[in-house]
Amino acid sequence: MNNDKVQASIITIGDELMIGQVVDTNSAWIAQQLNIAGIWVRKRVSVGDNYDEMWKAMEQESVDSRLVLITGGLGPTADDITKPFLCDYFGTTLVIDEGVLRHVQYLFDSILKRPFIERNRKQAEVPAGCTVIHNSRGTAPGMLFEKDGVIYVSMPGVPHEMKGMMEDLVLPLIKKRLVTGNIVHRTMLLAGIGESYLAEHIQLWEEALPQNFKLAYLPNQGLIRLRITGSGSDAEKLQKDLSEQFDALKILVQEWLVIDEDLSMPQVIGKMLNARKKLLGTAESCTGGYIAHLFTREAGASDKFNGSVISYSNEVKKDLLGVTRETLDTVGAVSEETVTQMAKGALKALKTDYAVATSGIMGPDGGSYAKPVGTVWVAVGDKHDLMTQEFHFRYDRMRNIEMTANAALNLLRKFMIRHDS
Amino acid sequence: MNNDKVQASIITIGDELMIGQVVDTNSAWIAQQLNIAGIWVRKRVSVGDNYDEMWKAMEQESVDSRLVLITGGLGPTADDITKPFLCDYFGTTLVIDEGVLRHVQYLFDSILKRPFIERNRKQAEVPAGCTVIHNSRGTAPGMLFEKDGVIYVSMPGVPHEMKGMMEDLVLPLIKKRLVTGNIVHRTMLLAGIGESYLAEHIQLWEEALPQNFKLAYLPNQGLIRLRITGSGSDAEKLQKDLSEQFDALKILVQEWLVIDEDLSMPQVIGKMLNARKKLLGTAESCTGGYIAHLFTREAGASDKFNGSVISYSNEVKKDLLGVTRETLDTVGAVSEETVTQMAKGALKALKTDYAVATSGIMGPDGGSYAKPVGTVWVAVGDKHDLMTQEFHFRYDRMRNIEMTANAALNLLRKFMIRHDS
Repeated sequence: MNNDKVQASIITIGDELMIGQVVDTNSAWIAQQLNIAGIWVRKRVSVGDNYDEMWKAMEQESVDSRLVLITGGLGPTADDITKPFLCDYFGTTLVIDEGVLRHVQYLFDSILKRPFIERNRKQAEVPAGCTVIHNSRGTAPGMLFEKDGVIYVSMPGVPHEMKGMMEDLVLPLIKKRLVTGNIVHRTMLLAGIGESYLAEHIQLWEEALPQNFKLAYLPNQGLIRLRITGSGSDAEKLQKDLSEQFDALKILVQEWLVIDEDLSMPQVIGKMLNARKKLLGTAESCTGGYIAHLFTREAGASDKFNGSVISYSNEVKKDLLGVTRETLDTVGAVSEETVTQMAKGALKALKTDYAVATSGIMGPDGGSYAKPVGTVWVAVGDKHDLMTQEFHFRYDRMRNIEMTANAALNLLRKFMIRHDS
Repeated sequence: MNNDKVQASIITIGDELMIGQVVDTNSAWIAQQLNIAGIWVRKRVSVGDNYDEMWKAMEQESVDSRLVLITGGLGPTADDITKPFLCDYFGTTLVIDEGVLRHVQYLFDSILKRPFIERNRKQAEVPAGCTVIHNSRGTAPGMLFEKDGVIYVSMPGVPHEMKGMMEDLVLPLIKKRLVTGNIVHRTMLLAGIGESYLAEHIQLWEEALPQNFKLAYLPNQGLIRLRITGSGSDAEKLQKDLSEQFDALKILVQEWLVIDEDLSMPQVIGKMLNARKKLLGTAESCTGGYIAHLFTREAGASDKFNGSVISYSNEVKKDLLGVTRETLDTVGAVSEETVTQMAKGALKALKTDYAVATSGIMGPDGGSYAKPVGTVWVAVGDKHDLMTQEFHFRYDRMRNIEMTANAALNLLRKFMIRHDS
């Protein structure tokens, strides 16, 4: 379906990727940006700080891709071998770029307030003949090369430096240089249905999809995103066809539909809170601040989120949320009674319109026969009414925390919808 | 340095990786496990759900790697093309595996409690002649193939299913099959120094490193991890040489050394709290629960972490932490006075030995001339004494939150060390 697209490869470089000490978030971000621009990423490659592997990767990617984006290995330290490698690969030599040198000196003098040492001069070296790309957020410049009809752009591996460079300079430049077709996506979020049952449910619709459309299932943390991707040369017709397919799919899955946009569950709740001009607070035991973090990591959180009591210990549940000693002693912290009292306590202490309360056993230890690892109680509600639900997850600790957060927010979503009428 | 190692490739498959809708965490985890086992990952590759790209990737990786691990594309849905692809690639056909069929039926009947539908039978199909690898956490089995001296293992893309399969079956199997040399790492964590200054500082030591050793700089969220990697056939000598190099480096960087292990900052603090039998609580405004989450996502959090007040709004700062109206009205929420009162309030409300308080402007909006985006105040301490510090970060919102968390915990570390004596 993507034969009419400009094909791209992303190469990330660094031994830290080969031993798994860091997760490569750069590739995903770059891929997103290229897709929006109508460029299809056909391959992502990571190699270590190894000259031969870098060479082989560059040669292999040049065969099928017209654009090769490279990140990593451009810092000032001895384990960075990318710049000399690029010189050899493109048959050139390193020269000092005066613009980069002034920028690096300025950063050290005025922003970093650290002495400019001889080694930092190396950061101003670039392969002669490349197009230098300014790094407004750091010292290492980007570099653009062109050879046999393929465009290569090398950028630093530090995510926020790479992102600034891509947004400000690289994306506009490659959009202008590479004639592109159209690629469009629409995504919806579903909750409360398994992947295989869903696939069976929409099988006939999916088999009837036109050739230039494709459906992807993206299950994550108890939710499923469904994404339709289409490509074509006629932008207007493509959008119209996409809308028709998307609307038909929405009707088929309406029972489980959370939202018909590419939003996360916290973003959906945030949108609902803003529309109702309501504030949320959380009382978190087993999720330990994760739900609060999901809201506060988004800009503009303060118009929907007031705060939380993270009551990891029973003392905090009693002192700040008013859970009774009797409840904790008889039915325990992981119970409908406790989360009910936590939610009521949060509404009062945090003075919010809605509250979400969680208590559960996230594992790997702490389970019992009556309450195995993965047992979770959730309460959601307002000052008039509460809804509670018990869940049983069976994954590792972090995944249980994530699933609990999504399940709790989905219950709040149902509560809000039910109480709208 | 790794010529004597078994070389491996990791191939992850899925259009969702090509458009960047999910971050590939599987590759990093697999790479970690292989490294511990003494297998060197020379390349990581991601391709879309595309037959030709999958074929090319398999052919290319077979040339230089003796082990090829594949994840993704093994679910029950129509966009999974991996199984038929593997059949073609290894010249075989799909057959129902009775063991897998019984397992899938059992899962649907007893665990998922969903009807077993015809489409689910497909999950029990495997290429004839492969070694079936049991999936204890899900329905899709793993498959092992061997061809021309290369071992291929295909696993599902769902992280917790893949991890269970790797730990229980794949790693023991490939360790037994592939004779391996020794690869060793040691990592230390530094705070308060820039990468280029550090490189200059240890240049002579680094240049004198023996051929079979290598140093990597892993800067992350305001901290730097330094990792020495060594390889060799004599395990005992290798460990001894590594210790000597590591100890020499420690002396050189002692001014910035946080810990001589591969731990995160929250893990370092957790270890210090456990050693002192002390409890921590947090009062978080700008970090919004992120510090609480860093502690509670680790198992065994309850013996060091009591809870938090996430005081995102000024009302919660007043009501639950006792920050005065006067302070908020005069010097504002982002000030030394406010975080001091927040820390004191947290010690009292949460009844903990130590408290960490944060307040700042994380961006992208909310900055002013006097307090630009990135301005952060932190207070740490116990009931006898407090330490405060102002920081200025200049990154995107999530990174500012992460940097604040690490900076706040590093200040708490200094506080604890200072008050030990």
